[in-house]
Amino acid sequence: MIELRSDTFTLPTPSMIRAMAEAPLGDDVYGEDPTANRLEELAAITLGKEAACFMPSGTMANLTSIMAHAPRGSKVLVGNEADIYIYEAGGASVCGGIVYEPIPTQADGRLLISDLERGFPDDPDDPQFAVPALICLENTHNRCGGAILPQDYLREVREFADTRGIPVHMDGARIFNAAVGAGTPVAEIAQYADSVQFCLSKGLSAPIGSMVVGSAAFIATVRRLRKMLGGGMRQVGVVAAAGILAIDEAAGLAEDHRRARLLAEGMSRLEGIEVALAEVQTNIVMFRVTDPRFTWKTFAAIAHEEGLAVAELGHGRLRAVLHRGLDDTDITKALDIIERILRSS
Amino acid sequence: MIELRSDTFTLPTPSMIRAMAEAPLGDDVYGEDPTANRLEELAAITLGKEAACFMPSGTMANLTSIMAHAPRGSKVLVGNEADIYIYEAGGASVCGGIVYEPIPTQADGRLLISDLERGFPDDPDDPQFAVPALICLENTHNRCGGAILPQDYLREVREFADTRGIPVHMDGARIFNAAVGAGTPVAEIAQYADSVQFCLSKGLSAPIGSMVVGSAAFIATVRRLRKMLGGGMRQVGVVAAAGILAIDEAAGLAEDHRRARLLAEGMSRLEGIEVALAEVQTNIVMFRVTDPRFTWKTFAAIAHEEGLAVAELGHGRLRAVLHRGLDDTDITKALDIIERILRSS
Amino acid sequence: MIELRSDTFTLPTPSMIRAMAEAPLGDDVYGEDPTANRLEELAAITLGKEAACFMPSGTMANLTSIMAHAPRGSKVLVGNEADIYIYEAGGASVCGGIVYEPIPTQADGRLLISDLERGFPDDPDDPQFAVPALICLENTHNRCGGAILPQDYLREVREFADTRGIPVHMDGARIFNAAVGAGTPVAEIAQYADSVQFCLSKGLSAPIGSMVVGSAAFIATVRRLRKMLGGGMRQVGVVAAAGILAIDEAAGLAEDHRRARLLAEGMSRLEGIEVALAEVQTNIVMFRVTDPRFTWKTFAAIAHEEGLAVAELGHGRLRAVLHRGLDDTDITKALDIIERILRSS
Amino acid sequence: MIELRSDTFTLPTPSMIRAMAEAPLGDDVYGEDPTANRLEELAAITLGKEAACFMPSGTMANLTSIMAHAPRGSKVLVGNEADIYIYEAGGASVCGGIVYEPIPTQADGRLLISDLERGFPDDPDDPQFAVPALICLENTHNRCGGAILPQDYLREVREFADTRGIPVHMDGARIFNAAVGAGTPVAEIAQYADSVQFCLSKGLSAPIGSMVVGSAAFIATVRRLRKMLGGGMRQVGVVAAAGILAIDEAAGLAEDHRRARLLAEGMSRLEGIEVALAEVQTNIVMFRVTDPRFTWKTFAAIAHEEGLAVAELGHGRLRAVLHRGLDDTDITKALDIIERILRSS
Repeated sequence: MIELRSDTFTLPTPSMIRAMAEAPLGDDVYGEDPTANRLEELAAITLGKEAACFMPSGTMANLTSIMAHAPRGSKVLVGNEADIYIYEAGGASVCGGIVYEPIPTQADGRLLISDLERGFPDDPDDPQFAVPALICLENTHNRCGGAILPQDYLREVREFADTRGIPVHMDGARIFNAAVGAGTPVAEIAQYADSVQFCLSKGLSAPIGSMVVGSAAFIATVRRLRKMLGGGMRQVGVVAAAGILAIDEAAGLAEDHRRARLLAEGMSRLEGIEVALAEVQTNIVMFRVTDPRFTWKTFAAIAHEEGLAVAELGHGRLRAVLHRGLDDTDITKALDIIERILRSS
Repeated sequence: MIELRSDTFTLPTPSMIRAMAEAPLGDDVYGEDPTANRLEELAAITLGKEAACFMPSGTMANLTSIMAHAPRGSKVLVGNEADIYIYEAGGASVCGGIVYEPIPTQADGRLLISDLERGFPDDPDDPQFAVPALICLENTHNRCGGAILPQDYLREVREFADTRGIPVHMDGARIFNAAVGAGTPVAEIAQYADSVQFCLSKGLSAPIGSMVVGSAAFIATVRRLRKMLGGGMRQVGVVAAAGILAIDEAAGLAEDHRRARLLAEGMSRLEGIEVALAEVQTNIVMFRVTDPRFTWKTFAAIAHEEGLAVAELGHGRLRAVLHRGLDDTDITKALDIIERILRSS
Repeated sequence: MIELRSDTFTLPTPSMIRAMAEAPLGDDVYGEDPTANRLEELAAITLGKEAACFMPSGTMANLTSIMAHAPRGSKVLVGNEADIYIYEAGGASVCGGIVYEPIPTQADGRLLISDLERGFPDDPDDPQFAVPALICLENTHNRCGGAILPQDYLREVREFADTRGIPVHMDGARIFNAAVGAGTPVAEIAQYADSVQFCLSKGLSAPIGSMVVGSAAFIATVRRLRKMLGGGMRQVGVVAAAGILAIDEAAGLAEDHRRARLLAEGMSRLEGIEVALAEVQTNIVMFRVTDPRFTWKTFAAIAHEEGLAVAELGHGRLRAVLHRGLDDTDITKALDIIERILRSS
Repeated sequence: MIELRSDTFTLPTPSMIRAMAEAPLGDDVYGEDPTANRLEELAAITLGKEAACFMPSGTMANLTSIMAHAPRGSKVLVGNEADIYIYEAGGASVCGGIVYEPIPTQADGRLLISDLERGFPDDPDDPQFAVPALICLENTHNRCGGAILPQDYLREVREFADTRGIPVHMDGARIFNAAVGAGTPVAEIAQYADSVQFCLSKGLSAPIGSMVVGSAAFIATVRRLRKMLGGGMRQVGVVAAAGILAIDEAAGLAEDHRRARLLAEGMSRLEGIEVALAEVQTNIVMFRVTDPRFTWKTFAAIAHEEGLAVAELGHGRLRAVLHRGLDDTDITKALDIIERILRSS
């Protein structure tokens, strides 16, 4: 099976598995796991922030960040195509008493400043209105095909947020794909956000975990919330060891990007498939089946039978995600399978 | 001052004040206020539901209804222009752990079935998604200029909701305006919703209160939630007495509708004002100041100085709401003031 | 029926009803009800605080106060016999994400400083623990038979709270009974609390409403929360007018206290009834039926048939509450009824 | 350092580390991790329940269980000495809108049926009261020195809960200690609860994780809540592999119990230490320093300097927890250190 549904399917590398077996361990709830501590320091330094906290998942990384920034009864401005809004089960409303205000997402993943602006009531003292306490961005943007938010845009949002006196959180689940894709150091991307979460378990291919980075005070609050939600774990070093290698080897994501381009170019030559080549910036290829004999559902089902796994990702589009578990041969095979399906009848 | 900001400014009529002074009273927390009980029976019968519960406000009427229908962690599908979404401070997220999913609102107040459809995840068992537990409609629709939702549309939503197995709540703050405006008995409108809230304190001109109606079991839950939120009051009869008259005299709203039309027609003849005559269905007139010398803010401020109070209501439109506190002379005066402002310079 | 279940059964006086009919009104959601504004000023001045806010109930007065003081995830230290803990449906947990920490209540209504002390974790930075953000006192104390908290004790709690850096909220539903009973100006009692709520609708006999008082900033937050919960009402003046008289005439509570003593003394002379005379400090008489032929349930049921209504109030005790709706003859009658029941067989 | 603070300090065994390195992996968010699936089946079978769900921590195991059982606004009856009440940061109130009702805990860890009974309001329809929706027990009971709840008692609670129509959740963080200590199969203990959580990461010595077991429908809800809280992880097999061995080797806990007894007996012979030998049933030894030259704080600090780590556990008692990381020599050394401290001056 050529697994293109997600980069969450990546398996730990042999060196990760070795590191996990050899990691010095301790009880992280007591702050005594040396490997977890080392990972947190590495993450903070790499992203250019004061502190970091290990999380069991990106969902908890985002949830604790939102709760740490936004008090009960406030609004979080978040893209209507954002993972936070769509795929995280409404946790901020349930656990935080926070209102999601979905903002229209541009095709390239940006939220327009003018749209953010509209989220603020004319009269913030009017008790009819929930008041925004946080802006969330997503970089790279999953449902926008792995789009990288431009640095200029990030600066603009930062300035807007400062004018309004509210913080910015970046869901950087794939921020290393943004850094590698744009050739920008990850800390330069992170500088525009008060807090960033990123996943060790997607393209970076660690088995488990995400990191939240931010100021020391913010991370202290996040850590408290992590315990309350049940994310405080014991000998975390066993998985943190893989996370350290994941960050160290992030440059390897370039290969995934090259292969995404290979795949997209191949697909763009097939009749019955629509793919916007220009939008393929990182490791994600969004495409549509335009051949009228298929719906996305039938196409995905047939592909699966043929040994190719892809997933729907909103609005009837299919998504192929490149990752370390695939090599160039897999791309060729994938293209062959797609071609065969389209040619058959 | 000609008060056109809202019909919430209505004062109780002399007969209401008399009724309030003479009402038999009791402690409603113990269910022993005969006047409150009488009002609740009247409301239930009038709307064609099993039971009713008095509420201090429409906000609490909506909040308790939503919480009674929707469990923690579920989504409520609600128009992005709905009062519930915009003006009720996010209470369902704060008190109920419920996620608001704003649905695009059509100009006539409808939410398209296809848009409601999109609120449901492909796979409801996938724990990434909050799952819809309630559809909310607003009738008449405030920010859509008092638009009446067509009965056919209500039937269509009812059928859709039944297919999906979720209830419909109607924010009928001005449902009597819908009934009077369309010439449809209010119970025929209410039949398509599992629960309805309506305000005694808007056009119906009682000083305080709203009613929730629905099944007996639903109202029992609503009553429990009312107590928890702090809406359980003591000698409620003093205000319920006015509510009984408010319902009895609802037919009088026709006068407000006639005057809204008078005002709208007058305004449509003025250069510098834009008003969509066809959209004036009940007691609300939405208009824009197109005269480039004014913004809505400067226009409203000058009008206020001249003795005419109007309010902004989203997207730069101004709103004039007719109500029992105004007579035909006030309409003439209001038009004179507007004309004078536009002619001046 | 001699109604001794609660002082919430008081009806508005004729002068209140007159005032309600004549009150100048406005829309209080816009802050334009002159009578409500006058009541809020009167309450603030009387209690010696910067500002006040009218509430539909004591439950909402307490709930908004707790939520304004205590952030999501914090603990409120509250007596295990307090109304807030027992009778308010857990609203602070539901709407505020706040944990109640019930503290043992002494027979005289006090919470020992040493018990409050134990509510604080050794290490407040340890994320295992919810951290106290508020102390709640109740004065007079309902389930402790209307006990007045001593001024010295209030000062002691104030100092303790200051040491710990957290605020004190007083559930003063019957604080005017404390003031009248102890001969202490109500502002001298209120001085030890950051916020106080008191009920207009109990012994003070207004039909509806409670007041929260505190600093201007606190009241602004409380007012915002009131709107969210649905306590923002329209022509509030109709009930606020009665509230003004309620405060003006608070001295009249002395009569209720005198009658409570009459009743208690009478009961203490009856075999089969146990009443702690020394504990009758205000308008509440707690008693036990020691005659083995009765349980509290059968006794209360028989009394009800005989024209005397009393209520259970925890631990098998019965409660008789004196109020403006009763005169000396009612006391005599009540004693007669009780005597008759005990003598019969 | 002889680590007696907690059994959470246990490190994975060499065979666990080997199993973790060799485990077949998949993305558990998609339900495709074969090792995690195998662990869940093993846990369900071992505890005699339909289904199981892996959790990052015992805190999340308890939190999801409580939320799955108890709706918003209900009460959970839980011991005032329970881990759930004291050490889990109030999560059920924050995330679930649930009220904790702490019930007095007997010295042996039981909650008296009569005390549970008092948690139910006389009139469950009275909206003043939050209504119990769940009873939580803890077995073995941490703060009661690792006490095992008697099977007869569990049956009694089960019957009481059935009468009341509410479920029972068992915080069985150390349920295998109970099983081994009492010689009762763990499924026989679990039969009296609707749901049980147990920790793989305490005495069982896996590095990370806890399990929830219960009916299939309950576990489906728990799994949904886990995702929302952020407990859905990816290649969970890397830690689940250790969990499988943890369960397989649970019988080894008997050694910890034997050593706890050794330690307790040794301490009972020392002047200046008070230990209730009869209460040492499993792997926990609670003791007091009665030598007046020490407080628990100074004693623990000196012990730490001498190479012995113990922790306070409420009411000034110190706790020593035995676990796989210790052998008989450590017990001798620990006793030597304590004796030396007491003898010195």
